[in-house]
Amino acid sequence: MKKILVVGTVAYDEIETPSESSGKILGGAGTYIGLSASIFNINQSIISIVGGDFNQKYLNLLKSKGIDISSIEIIPDGKTFYWKGKYHKDWNKRDTISTELNVLADFNPKLNDDQKQSEIIVLGNLHPLVQSTVLNQVNSENKCVILDTMNFWMDNALEELHDVIARVDVIIINDEEAIQLSGRENLFTAAQEIMTHGPSHIVIKKGEHGAMLFSKTEFFTTPAFPVKDVKDPTGAGDCFAGGFAGFLAQCEDINFQNLKTAVVHGTINASFCVEGFGTSSIQKLNKEKAQDRFKEFKSFTRY
Amino acid sequence: MKKILVVGTVAYDEIETPSESSGKILGGAGTYIGLSASIFNINQSIISIVGGDFNQKYLNLLKSKGIDISSIEIIPDGKTFYWKGKYHKDWNKRDTISTELNVLADFNPKLNDDQKQSEIIVLGNLHPLVQSTVLNQVNSENKCVILDTMNFWMDNALEELHDVIARVDVIIINDEEAIQLSGRENLFTAAQEIMTHGPSHIVIKKGEHGAMLFSKTEFFTTPAFPVKDVKDPTGAGDCFAGGFAGFLAQCEDINFQNLKTAVVHGTINASFCVEGFGTSSIQKLNKEKAQDRFKEFKSFTRY
Repeated sequence: MKKILVVGTVAYDEIETPSESSGKILGGAGTYIGLSASIFNINQSIISIVGGDFNQKYLNLLKSKGIDISSIEIIPDGKTFYWKGKYHKDWNKRDTISTELNVLADFNPKLNDDQKQSEIIVLGNLHPLVQSTVLNQVNSENKCVILDTMNFWMDNALEELHDVIARVDVIIINDEEAIQLSGRENLFTAAQEIMTHGPSHIVIKKGEHGAMLFSKTEFFTTPAFPVKDVKDPTGAGDCFAGGFAGFLAQCEDINFQNLKTAVVHGTINASFCVEGFGTSSIQKLNKEKAQDRFKEFKSFTRY
Repeated sequence: MKKILVVGTVAYDEIETPSESSGKILGGAGTYIGLSASIFNINQSIISIVGGDFNQKYLNLLKSKGIDISSIEIIPDGKTFYWKGKYHKDWNKRDTISTELNVLADFNPKLNDDQKQSEIIVLGNLHPLVQSTVLNQVNSENKCVILDTMNFWMDNALEELHDVIARVDVIIINDEEAIQLSGRENLFTAAQEIMTHGPSHIVIKKGEHGAMLFSKTEFFTTPAFPVKDVKDPTGAGDCFAGGFAGFLAQCEDINFQNLKTAVVHGTINASFCVEGFGTSSIQKLNKEKAQDRFKEFKSFTRY
């Protein structure tokens, strides 16, 4: 089993959908990734930062999932990162109502000796400079670095993002972001272009339409697990990354075969995520439920 | 092997894409369905109508594919159905520049005794009343009727369309049309709603995102075969239907297992279609090439 390190926000979210309003609830990329990966019963730690206003019960929740939270720094007189977003009838569109960086503005992740030896590093969606800071400290020889990022950083910190991209093994982005990042017109040329900058693999997420995995010579495509009643898409991408990384952490080798299965576990965990409001559904997920859906998905896709 | 009857337009198309302009070329739903199905070396006939202006070489082409064209009526002093369309950079949008019904306005299909015994009937995209006229004449006991239709008939002949739907076994429509036809908001409830009106199976096409197959109790989903360089989407839906029906024609039983494989053959044949302008690519397709891509697709989707 591989030691996995997740860096990402542990935060407060406030979510509005056409049918519900959440109030202030547990959120953050690091939270979703961590919860999602934890179902594989792996050796995982999260590095993050929260304010004194962060409810201890949420930290206890992460701990109860077997996650090492000793590197989630608490700034007693600081406020936790806060994001408020609103979804419309078309789940693919969301408006950010408010973003308060708060303690995240001064986040300077410091890895302990144990974390420096991590074999799987998941760089959750954060400023590329923060992601680089983490990579600078990792000194394990055989590591697999997985990068999650988004168009915001392409628009606002492209050079720094390229510096990170050059150092990672796998990028996970969505279809529009792949087009934007590469400047190409289709996902195949986009993936190949991005791989010339360093990564050996790219996962392109297409939301309800599934995901694709590219290496320089291999290709895999899968539909999404069909969700009949989406409640809240928040965190779906992070849960995808968590399922992907968590599955890999329990694999002997990181080869194309295992990467394909990891993509399917990503789509499965994401499908659970969107069935509940906020983290409610992914909190309740366990390995057995995920495995059952994995089998069901196989029956939906085999011919 | 099952006897298959295709009813649909055999026509002239004129297509503009951002990079090419076709001039007047062979087109029509019946043509695309017939060519696509023909790769399975089946017992197929097409029922259609053309004008005296229709080039004999196109009829010879269909004949050379083993298609019985004796029921393609030729009206010597009539003009062939003509459609002109224009695609933009986004292949999903197309403008109809011109539609001239010509001889199609008086199309009153008459089945010969042999055709009345067809076991697979493909109702290509046509006025629902014409589709009904065909069904009225079929008297085989065990038949499978496959309906292809589009939003135009939902907008303009909904009642007549519902009359046909009540009599068919399989509907093939795209995602937007399924939503429109059912009045539901997602594809699952849409499919179930539509099946209450008669069909036992629904295939929902999602273009580059693949297809789904529903029965009342079973479900199948597949991505599309990835096409790196789309030349012209015209006829892709018809080639899907042709590959689907052609594969079924050579099956002993029409069960869910075979319907799933038929959907994959639909997506494979459609992928060939869009790689060439007009019918150029599907004309050149043969069983071996389709089988090779079918195997390649399996390797892209298995984990």
